[in-house]
Amino acid sequence: MNKDKFPSELRLDKASGNWVVIATGRAKRPESFKKVKNGSIKESNKDCFFCNIETQGEPLLVYYKGKKVEGIKKWTTVVIPNKFPAFIRSKSLNRKKRGEFFETMNAVGAHEVVITKNHNKSLALLSLAEVKEVIDVYTDRYNSLIKEDGINYVAIFHNHGPEAGASVAHPHSQIAGIPLIDYDLKKALAKSKKYKKDGDCIYCRMNDWELKEKERIVYENEHFIALCPFTSKVAFQVIISPKKHLSHFENITEQEKESLADAFRTVLRKLYKALGDPAYNFYLHSAPSDNDDHLYYHWHWTILPKTSIWAGFELGVGIEISTIEPEEAAKYLRNQKI
Amino acid sequence: MNKDKFPSELRLDKASGNWVVIATGRAKRPESFKKVKNGSIKESNKDCFFCNIETQGEPLLVYYKGKKVEGIKKWTTVVIPNKFPAFIRSKSLNRKKRGEFFETMNAVGAHEVVITKNHNKSLALLSLAEVKEVIDVYTDRYNSLIKEDGINYVAIFHNHGPEAGASVAHPHSQIAGIPLIDYDLKKALAKSKKYKKDGDCIYCRMNDWELKEKERIVYENEHFIALCPFTSKVAFQVIISPKKHLSHFENITEQEKESLADAFRTVLRKLYKALGDPAYNFYLHSAPSDNDDHLYYHWHWTILPKTSIWAGFELGVGIEISTIEPEEAAKYLRNQKI
Repeated sequence: MNKDKFPSELRLDKASGNWVVIATGRAKRPESFKKVKNGSIKESNKDCFFCNIETQGEPLLVYYKGKKVEGIKKWTTVVIPNKFPAFIRSKSLNRKKRGEFFETMNAVGAHEVVITKNHNKSLALLSLAEVKEVIDVYTDRYNSLIKEDGINYVAIFHNHGPEAGASVAHPHSQIAGIPLIDYDLKKALAKSKKYKKDGDCIYCRMNDWELKEKERIVYENEHFIALCPFTSKVAFQVIISPKKHLSHFENITEQEKESLADAFRTVLRKLYKALGDPAYNFYLHSAPSDNDDHLYYHWHWTILPKTSIWAGFELGVGIEISTIEPEEAAKYLRNQKI
Repeated sequence: MNKDKFPSELRLDKASGNWVVIATGRAKRPESFKKVKNGSIKESNKDCFFCNIETQGEPLLVYYKGKKVEGIKKWTTVVIPNKFPAFIRSKSLNRKKRGEFFETMNAVGAHEVVITKNHNKSLALLSLAEVKEVIDVYTDRYNSLIKEDGINYVAIFHNHGPEAGASVAHPHSQIAGIPLIDYDLKKALAKSKKYKKDGDCIYCRMNDWELKEKERIVYENEHFIALCPFTSKVAFQVIISPKKHLSHFENITEQEKESLADAFRTVLRKLYKALGDPAYNFYLHSAPSDNDDHLYYHWHWTILPKTSIWAGFELGVGIEISTIEPEEAAKYLRNQKI
């Protein structure tokens, strides 16, 4: 590898507006792709890096039983830098043209891991206070990262289970601060902006409609609605969004955090029970932290249980096929006693 | 299930322009999603439906040793209707509004399965003549389906291996005739149209550039180029496209079919050897068969080896991360002796 090369590169297809990351810093030799994945990941907590957190370098944030603390002696949730970052701090973007159709730049930003203490308890099995602590930690790091120069968007996401791409069994989330807003996010923002102009925000109006229709609602509490969307992309997809119009996740109040923790925990427990601890991905969409205010946006979390694999049709045509009506999935989840 | 309901429903999110299919005809009970997928699929050819093709209803097309034949007594490649179709022939689209933001319509169209005889030989292991026969069959069915009323796009795709979503071990491809063009395809068409206006077609110009740069070329023959794209979405992604500007797959010549079979077989064998029979998806993108002529488009095949799982970051942010440079992947494939 060229030693002058930044260890992770963003590449833009100018014609489509799509970016990819070539994470050469964690590059593997071509031969290493040969190993057949059998879907199993290290389950023992004896050798688990995250159980032995003191070997993982300086933590960025430590919580112990609901409170921020200094030092790693006692912890219940901790944030550390990702050892194999896709985004890395730097002052130089070094943006360059490549031929007529492409551009490259350094994948500048931050990439962190949020770890909860118990190796064997995924989020669905945590207490309300423990889930609230995770939300506190998300919010704390989110607020810190959006203030950094060069970070225009902060992605919080969580992969549970090997089928959902989790490469470490110990429960953990990831937070990435990235320098740009991708085509898909731009499209979502443009859509929200357009519909906000015509009246209320599109999510507010959809939530109103869903509350009237009732059949896709999975759960609601004081501040949040969880539902299986009308155009679900996978069976048992759930979206959790605030009832009030909230554009920026960083402005979440203490009360809303309590309420979000309850909604999250309830939905994850229902999925756990209904589908037998399914693999899943979840992620936040919120207004970017670039120079625009994006007040028209409405933040929300999307949970995608790995109930199927997007294959040639989905990848080629861009239309997802699922084999259960969202109405029936929602009813099934609604009726799960947890 | 409502007996008046069409057994597969398309749902449109009008704000984003994205469609999904809710295939209620093959709907499973909610409980059935609980079963943990272990990634293994029936391997025995004794009980294989596709080995016992005579139990699978009337074939739509039968080939035997390179020639189209009548009847199923002797066959090497056969096309049958998909027993669990996502798209079903009907005269009525029955398009309806649902609330302010959604529409539904019957998932009208066709859904077929292309089966090659040998249970244990995937495409990479077939002879050149056998791969050519598969291309012949693709072309034959493609030409037939695009002429049908109500079919505006024909998708040919292939899933190999359980990790890539193949639910049957016996090698097979699928062909779906669908009534619409999805947002992603519209975007790709618009991009091609825009760049064609400014000069040559975007794919022609990219291919010229790639032939000069050389480092991402995997293979070329008289009519085709196979390369790892500059903005690869997965490690070892390969695109096969004609050197000449060809917009409509249905117009492929006999010579080009021979050449395509050679390119396909070579790339699949290189992937087989390099990555140890990886799971993969491949699919065709070609000009739609709706009322526009789309002469600006340049058809091509995309092969996506399942070298990783798109997880929370890819799904949430829309930026794919891969851990090998396309240049290095291409070099590795180029150097595979097959």
